[in-house]
Amino acid sequence: MNKSIVFHFLSKTMLFGSVLFLLPCLVSVIYHEYDSARAFFIVALIIAIISTPLAILKPKNKQMYAREGLVIVALLWVIYPIAGALPFYISGEIPHFVDAVFESISGFTTTGSTILQDVEALSKGMLFWRSFTHWVGGMGVLVLAIAIMPSSNDSMYLMRAECAGPQVGKIVPKGKKSAMYLYIIYAGLTVLTFILLCAGGMPVFDSICHAMGTAGTGGFGIKNNGVAFYNSAYIDGVITVMMALFGVNFSLFYFAIARRFKDIWKNTELKVYVAIIAAATGLIMLNIYPLYGSVSKCFRYAVFQVSSIMTSTGFGTADYTKWPEFSQMLLIILMFVGACAGSTGGGLKVQRIIIAFKSGIKSVRQTLRPKSVNVLKSDDKTMDTATVHGVQTYLIIYLGFFLASLLLISLNNADFATTFSSVTTCINNIGPGLSRVGPAENFSFFSDFSKIVLSIDMLLGRLECFPVIILLAPTVWRKKF
Amino acid sequence: MNKSIVFHFLSKTMLFGSVLFLLPCLVSVIYHEYDSARAFFIVALIIAIISTPLAILKPKNKQMYAREGLVIVALLWVIYPIAGALPFYISGEIPHFVDAVFESISGFTTTGSTILQDVEALSKGMLFWRSFTHWVGGMGVLVLAIAIMPSSNDSMYLMRAECAGPQVGKIVPKGKKSAMYLYIIYAGLTVLTFILLCAGGMPVFDSICHAMGTAGTGGFGIKNNGVAFYNSAYIDGVITVMMALFGVNFSLFYFAIARRFKDIWKNTELKVYVAIIAAATGLIMLNIYPLYGSVSKCFRYAVFQVSSIMTSTGFGTADYTKWPEFSQMLLIILMFVGACAGSTGGGLKVQRIIIAFKSGIKSVRQTLRPKSVNVLKSDDKTMDTATVHGVQTYLIIYLGFFLASLLLISLNNADFATTFSSVTTCINNIGPGLSRVGPAENFSFFSDFSKIVLSIDMLLGRLECFPVIILLAPTVWRKKF
Repeated sequence: MNKSIVFHFLSKTMLFGSVLFLLPCLVSVIYHEYDSARAFFIVALIIAIISTPLAILKPKNKQMYAREGLVIVALLWVIYPIAGALPFYISGEIPHFVDAVFESISGFTTTGSTILQDVEALSKGMLFWRSFTHWVGGMGVLVLAIAIMPSSNDSMYLMRAECAGPQVGKIVPKGKKSAMYLYIIYAGLTVLTFILLCAGGMPVFDSICHAMGTAGTGGFGIKNNGVAFYNSAYIDGVITVMMALFGVNFSLFYFAIARRFKDIWKNTELKVYVAIIAAATGLIMLNIYPLYGSVSKCFRYAVFQVSSIMTSTGFGTADYTKWPEFSQMLLIILMFVGACAGSTGGGLKVQRIIIAFKSGIKSVRQTLRPKSVNVLKSDDKTMDTATVHGVQTYLIIYLGFFLASLLLISLNNADFATTFSSVTTCINNIGPGLSRVGPAENFSFFSDFSKIVLSIDMLLGRLECFPVIILLAPTVWRKKF
Repeated sequence: MNKSIVFHFLSKTMLFGSVLFLLPCLVSVIYHEYDSARAFFIVALIIAIISTPLAILKPKNKQMYAREGLVIVALLWVIYPIAGALPFYISGEIPHFVDAVFESISGFTTTGSTILQDVEALSKGMLFWRSFTHWVGGMGVLVLAIAIMPSSNDSMYLMRAECAGPQVGKIVPKGKKSAMYLYIIYAGLTVLTFILLCAGGMPVFDSICHAMGTAGTGGFGIKNNGVAFYNSAYIDGVITVMMALFGVNFSLFYFAIARRFKDIWKNTELKVYVAIIAAATGLIMLNIYPLYGSVSKCFRYAVFQVSSIMTSTGFGTADYTKWPEFSQMLLIILMFVGACAGSTGGGLKVQRIIIAFKSGIKSVRQTLRPKSVNVLKSDDKTMDTATVHGVQTYLIIYLGFFLASLLLISLNNADFATTFSSVTTCINNIGPGLSRVGPAENFSFFSDFSKIVLSIDMLLGRLECFPVIILLAPTVWRKKF
């Protein structure tokens, strides 16, 4: 492996990342929270000092392949969230270090699970930072760095490693330009969300935080009872629609801007995504009707929760653990499905489900008529076996990590629903689970060991396993590799 | 499809199957239970009358392919268990028809889940019948028919459809001979179990029932508190060892008889199977030590439960729902793993887990070194991509059915652990689950709809999905197929 390019890129991105700490620092100053401001400033300074020397030195060998890309992304995603935990810890607002790391990783991976029992006790600066980590983590800190920093290398390998989905399409041939377009669309939609929320009477600070949490499909709230605090059908509606939009493949927004509407129309994943949201909303409405007794109320709560879970955001307006078992089970299954590939959402991604489903159908057909030729198609393009095989293998690796985590988390001796749903919600980057980790609860009661395991699960989910595995593979670090 | 051969074979097997009802009839007569005896006799007579005409007529076209094999097996496995439910229903011992069908399917699929709240209230004839369905279903009623009936066709397609595992090896080239050898080994081991149980002081009738339940890896008991009733370390030990043996690929017993010890030694699946049992037993012992405070007691309960769950038998000597969460989670995961391919056990099979695991490792390697050539090996033989792909597709289809069942069963509005574990235990043909379907509980509280769904799950698990899917595919029944 080309270690020099790995450390060079890593340092450069960390240096860039240190600048991001100045934004919450500014927010803290505005609200006269000087303890928080100092914490952010110290962390920014430390990162800058450590990473500058390596970032300035040019590496001898500029060769970069998939391997290097994966390792850079994996290392970055371990180091940066730990740095992101430092302000919580230094300011004393989250006094336990493992808790601070959990909260930070939950933020960057856009999970939104929290260890805080009283989120309203946090300073404005820290609340802003939590939501800001969602925004940066959603599209990726590296993609952001690529978009903004002057870069000579081809950065496609890096983007592939950080973006989610089985077939990450480049919007345009050049990696840097793709990253820029992605972030312009992302920022534009975030600002739109902010404006719409403000228009509904949500305070400016709250609107900024919720807009960033929605954009990254994160789910950290700033009120103890979440979005329900605002008790406004308009705000629920805005967040519902915007969450659903941020769960769409971002290439489609590019197509929309480029007026390539045919490409949008042909997109199978979008159709299936919309169909699942519609069907799940309908089923849950039927199921919870006896609880609310009004179609409009049922629709409002059901569509919000489906959109929130499916896009892996995790905002809540109702405590779904009080809904019948069927609705809860449907939501748990949607957690695994997740949003579209190439969005900020988590889960397995609709695209993978489609490919897996089609390969299943094909296999049945082949058993029925051994001599027929069956070709898998996606959006009118023939899918190569490598993609299908890749999806199937991904599912297996994912399941392996899932089961191992279940065993480790069960050491807490919580009930089955808690153990199962806490792993589910973390590995799919959702936020809330069932039972003791339901929407009205939090993750504080877990042991430190469990919090570390769940943090790793969040990283596995966000980076789609491979970078994390490769980081752990000893062969990568051998000289002769 | 060649319908004439399908109905011919089906009728022939049903005719043969009707004879099997005379055995419990005889048991009933011995115990002077004439109501039960009459019920068995009536059912045998009805089946014989209906199936004789088609069984005698020779089909014009004797061509049989995988398709026909799958359809025959699927139809047989729907019709025969329903016939097997009739004695329960006619005799009035299980007065509700859906309950009787559930109990019968649970028997034939060697699941062992019961709707009976008081199993000791049943007549001896019915108790015998329940255990006998395990024995017949374990190796397969069709395989038994092939072994005994004079048959001109090549029956390999039928055997493949009824035997479990990703690569069913023929023991000998001819299907009929393979079936005969399989049943001779099966019967021999069953008799051995019976003798060993009798030697431990278990009554003869009880020994027969438990021997059949162990051989089929079924799990129906004849006492309300299961094997714990006998309270004997010797009996626990015998059943533990024999369950584990019946979970081994039966080809290995053939190799042992043929003195091909090298082939046994080379078998990776066996090694992994033994390793999993040993590791799981050790982990559970550590976990439950505080409950029992004695290493020997811990070992006795742990190894029995691991062997029982892993082989998908489901016998119990301790209520594991009272064990810590970790042990329960481990047992739930073992339910998915299951026994070896080509055994009477259920679950996904160790062989599939190995193949899936290896394909995952290979995929990671390939990402690391794109240019290297990675070949998957199994027992020194190179595995073709078709097998690997088949295993992966099977997992996906299986997961699809699993999730759909979860949703349907959640309509019962039971708790998450009950819903999840009831589907898990049924689709893997285990028997007991967690919470309200734990070892000390039963399935009687489920709605009829749920009982039917769980019955289909048991069939899906036993037949490994494909025959059931194909039965439901409309294209199979088209004329021009």
